[in-house]
Amino acid sequence: MCRVDQPATTPSAPKGEQTRALILETALRLFQENGYDRTTMRAIAKDAGVSVGNAYYYFESKEHLVQGFYDRMVALHREAVAPLLASEPKFAARLDGVMQAWLEVSEPYHEFAAQFFKNAADPASPLSPFSDESSPARDAGIGLMRSVLLGSTAKVDPELREDLPELLWLYQMAVVLFWVHDKSEKAAKTGMLVRRSTPLIARLLQLSATRVFRPLTREGVQLFRDIGWFTSK
Amino acid sequence: MCRVDQPATTPSAPKGEQTRALILETALRLFQENGYDRTTMRAIAKDAGVSVGNAYYYFESKEHLVQGFYDRMVALHREAVAPLLASEPKFAARLDGVMQAWLEVSEPYHEFAAQFFKNAADPASPLSPFSDESSPARDAGIGLMRSVLLGSTAKVDPELREDLPELLWLYQMAVVLFWVHDKSEKAAKTGMLVRRSTPLIARLLQLSATRVFRPLTREGVQLFRDIGWFTSK
Repeated sequence: MCRVDQPATTPSAPKGEQTRALILETALRLFQENGYDRTTMRAIAKDAGVSVGNAYYYFESKEHLVQGFYDRMVALHREAVAPLLASEPKFAARLDGVMQAWLEVSEPYHEFAAQFFKNAADPASPLSPFSDESSPARDAGIGLMRSVLLGSTAKVDPELREDLPELLWLYQMAVVLFWVHDKSEKAAKTGMLVRRSTPLIARLLQLSATRVFRPLTREGVQLFRDIGWFTSK
Repeated sequence: MCRVDQPATTPSAPKGEQTRALILETALRLFQENGYDRTTMRAIAKDAGVSVGNAYYYFESKEHLVQGFYDRMVALHREAVAPLLASEPKFAARLDGVMQAWLEVSEPYHEFAAQFFKNAADPASPLSPFSDESSPARDAGIGLMRSVLLGSTAKVDPELREDLPELLWLYQMAVVLFWVHDKSEKAAKTGMLVRRSTPLIARLLQLSATRVFRPLTREGVQLFRDIGWFTSK
């Protein structure tokens, strides 16, 4: 009411974005301090200094807050790897860089991820990386792997071109699973896993285009198709 | 007191085993009916017609009941595959038979597994297949895979002989993960996954002993060793 001098058409997005970000920050902090299960929307609103109604306006539920967290991680990750993907032609280096960047971006949330993991691991949960609700973050993650692969100089069997990015994303999910369990200092073990598995994957990719190996790879990918694995179609 | 005619040396194991089995049955039924989280030891004892103290005598906690469930599944599985493992020489057929038998033995618990999964997926939970508490069931599972492999006519790189059974068990865990999410009628999709992935694994095993492929396999296995994967050592 004291800001009547502002015309009604002033873009409110920046302010809205700020409030949204504040609520998300607060939620993540409270999740880390008190645990995901024990943190209520009411407590988040109170700590963020907004009304409960306002909090619900930006995030329909606690699950939506976690989706907001996923989306933010994807955005940070994408930003972090943009220079690499624009300049590095080698597949192995691209994959390694993208995975190491993911570890760096996620490091502050390692503890939260460990305690939060059991919610995301529940197949029935909207927070599972395989749920419908997670599809924006998942599609973005698969898209990043598509760029890793197709922006590289690696030879790719044309029959597998469509599906390999999703299998690379699955590799990423396996690394995430390992990372969640990783108790080594600054997740050093996961760092090593990435550093040493990415060249192996690059060599498997090379092999997959050879005469001996191609039928095996195609059969493997076809199996993934037949069990309905590929979520992007 | 009314059974004083029984000498003190009468083996009480059968009776004890019966009570133990009854408590385990009852627990599994209540877990399925009311959910794992909502079922208390008190309710289990009441339904089984034993005292709460008696229930705790056999199972220290709800977690121990689940370990009891794991142990039973392993025993049933081992029993089911004994004839096959004694007679079939081919690796692919042995692996396929063992995996299909697991699906059959586990079928009645599919629904329970789906709702129970988030507890087992928590890395901090004693119910995780990777926990210290689960090591008897895990070791038995790895032992079964050792017998699948080493009892077959397949050529195995001697350097990998020790570790491959645990990687096969990891494949089994991946199948279990898929099975938990599988909503198809009688888990038919998982059945197909097993039927078609076991020959692929057999061919990978063959390849792993060839000149081109051996360095890659060894490097992969060495990586698993270096991240401390192998739990059996």
